[in-house]
Amino acid sequence: MVSMGSIMADLDRRRDTIEEALEGFVQQRMAGSEAPAMKLASDILLAGGKRYRPIIALLAFEAAGGDDISKVMNFAMSAEIIHTATLVHDDIYDQSKIRRGKPTLHTSSGLPHAIIAGDYLFALGFGLGGRHEDKVVERVAETCGRIATGELQQLEHIGNLATTPEDYYAIVDGKTAFPFASGCWGAAVLAKAPEATVTALELFGMEFGRAFQMVDDLLDLTGEPSMGKPRGTDVHDGKMTLPLIHALTMLHGAEREQLADVLQNFSDERWEELIELLDAAESLYYVKQLIENHVERAMNALETLPRTEARDMMFELVRISESRRN
Amino acid sequence: MVSMGSIMADLDRRRDTIEEALEGFVQQRMAGSEAPAMKLASDILLAGGKRYRPIIALLAFEAAGGDDISKVMNFAMSAEIIHTATLVHDDIYDQSKIRRGKPTLHTSSGLPHAIIAGDYLFALGFGLGGRHEDKVVERVAETCGRIATGELQQLEHIGNLATTPEDYYAIVDGKTAFPFASGCWGAAVLAKAPEATVTALELFGMEFGRAFQMVDDLLDLTGEPSMGKPRGTDVHDGKMTLPLIHALTMLHGAEREQLADVLQNFSDERWEELIELLDAAESLYYVKQLIENHVERAMNALETLPRTEARDMMFELVRISESRRN
Repeated sequence: MVSMGSIMADLDRRRDTIEEALEGFVQQRMAGSEAPAMKLASDILLAGGKRYRPIIALLAFEAAGGDDISKVMNFAMSAEIIHTATLVHDDIYDQSKIRRGKPTLHTSSGLPHAIIAGDYLFALGFGLGGRHEDKVVERVAETCGRIATGELQQLEHIGNLATTPEDYYAIVDGKTAFPFASGCWGAAVLAKAPEATVTALELFGMEFGRAFQMVDDLLDLTGEPSMGKPRGTDVHDGKMTLPLIHALTMLHGAEREQLADVLQNFSDERWEELIELLDAAESLYYVKQLIENHVERAMNALETLPRTEARDMMFELVRISESRRN
Repeated sequence: MVSMGSIMADLDRRRDTIEEALEGFVQQRMAGSEAPAMKLASDILLAGGKRYRPIIALLAFEAAGGDDISKVMNFAMSAEIIHTATLVHDDIYDQSKIRRGKPTLHTSSGLPHAIIAGDYLFALGFGLGGRHEDKVVERVAETCGRIATGELQQLEHIGNLATTPEDYYAIVDGKTAFPFASGCWGAAVLAKAPEATVTALELFGMEFGRAFQMVDDLLDLTGEPSMGKPRGTDVHDGKMTLPLIHALTMLHGAEREQLADVLQNFSDERWEELIELLDAAESLYYVKQLIENHVERAMNALETLPRTEARDMMFELVRISESRRN
C-alpha cells in the first residue's frame, strides 16, 4: 500500500514539473519579439496558483496509460495559461484587487494593459494547445467558447434572485467543469487511451470540476480571511451561488423577504444575518451534500480505470480539493 | 485584357463569399450551447467591415495556385474573426463610441460583456485557424502574440514625443503588417505552393499591411468626417503616428515647440494649427511617399508570381486601399 505522505510528495513533484515547464516557456519567449507582452503576462502566470488544471491533465495522461509525459506538457500548460487569461479578464470586471497574492494586473498596470495581457495569454495558450491533432485543438477552442458563455450567463444573473439551480449548473459547467473535463479528455486522447478510458476520465473531470467550483462558492461563505480568500466577495458582487439559490427556495414568508433584502442591500454589517438565514435553510449542509455526490461520481468514474499510482494521486487530489481552505 | 469593371465585380464576389461564410458560421453556432456568447459577438462580426484580411487570404490562395477555395475558407474567416476580436477590445481602451456604423459593444452592453465577447471571438478565430497543420496553427497564435505586443508598444508610446520611426514600425508591423503577412503566408501554405511563392506572398502581405496602416494613419489627419471616419482621433488619443513623428523631427525652434504644445494640449480648436505645422514640415507628403514605396514593394513581390486573375485582383485591391477615403 502506498502511504499518504508519499502521494503528497508525488503531487508536489507534479506541481514542480508544471512550474518548471511554465518558467522555461516564459524564459524562451522573453528572448524574442514578444518580450514586452511576456514581461507583463509572466508576472501573473508565474505568481503561483494552485495549478489544479495542469496537474490533473498530467495525472489523467498517466492514468490513461501515457508514458512519455513530454507529450502532454504543452497541453497541460495550455490549460493553465488559458485559465490565467480568464482570471486576468475576470478580475477586471469583478474589480478584484488581489490575485495570487499580488495586485491584479489592471490595478498595477491599468485597464488597457490588463485586457492586452489577457489576450496575449489566450494566444499563448491556444498556440500550445494548437500543437495537437485537430480534435484536440477544436476542443481547446470549444472550451474557451464555453468559458465565455458561462461567464456571460453569470453576468446575466447578477443580482437576479430568480436564478435557478439549472442556471447555476450551466454557469459552473461552462466556467469550470467543462474545462476540467476537457483537460482530462485531451490528456487521455494524447495518451492514445481506448474510448472507454477517455470517457471515464472526461466524466471524472466534469464531476471533479463541479465539486471544485462548489467548494469555491462555499468558501466564499465559510472561508477564513486569514487563508487568503476574502469572505463574501460573491455576495458583494451579486453572484448567485448555489447556497444562496437554495436558501431563497427553502425560506418562506418573513425569512425569505429578509434574505432577499440582505442580498439586495448587502454590506459587511449584514454578514451574521446572512449566515443565520443560510443556517436556517440548511443551505451550506445541502451544498456540502451535493459536493459529496459529485465527488462520489468523480471517484466512481476513476474506479473503472486500472489501479495506478496516478489514479491514487487523482483520488487524493480530489480529497485535498474538497477539504481545502482557500 | 481584363476590364477594371470586371475586376471590381470579382472583388465584390469575394466579399460576398466571405459574408456568406461568416453568416453560415454564426448561424450554425447560434443553435448550440454557445448561443448567448454568439448573439453578442455576431452583432459586431456581421456589421460589415471592409473584410480586407479574409479577402487577401482568398486571393493569395488562388494566386498561389490553390483551386478548391473551401480549403482556405476557415483560415480566411479566422483572420477576420480575430481582427474583430481585437477591434472589440481596442475600442474599450480607446473609448471609441462607434464601430462599423454601430455603437461599440462596451457602449451598448457594458465593459464586462465587451471583454467576454472579444475573448469569445478570439476562441472562435483560434478554433477555425486551428483546423490546419501545426505550422499554420502556430503562426495564427504567433500572429495574435505579435498583435498584443504591438498594441502594448503603442500604449507605451502614448503621448511620447520622443517616439522614433523604428518604434512606429514595430507597432505597425505587430498590429497590422504581420497579420496581413500571416494571412497571405498561410493561404499560400494551404494552397501547397512552392517555397518561393509562399515567401513572395508573405512579403506582399507585409508591405501591403504597412501601406494599409499608414493610409489609416493619414486618414486620421486628412479624412472627411462625412466618410464615416472621425478626424483626429489618434491625435486626441495621443497616438504617435508617422506624420506626427516626422513633423517633430523636421521642425525646429518655435515651430517645434508649438507642435509639441499642440500635441500635448490638443483640442479640436487647434486642428488648423496642427495641419499648418504638418504642412510646413511636409509630413503628409513624406508619409504619402513612404506609402508609395511600400505599395511598390508589395507590387514587386506580386510580379514574381505567374499572372492570374487573382493576382490582378490583388493589384487592384492595393490600389483601392491606397486611395480609400475611410
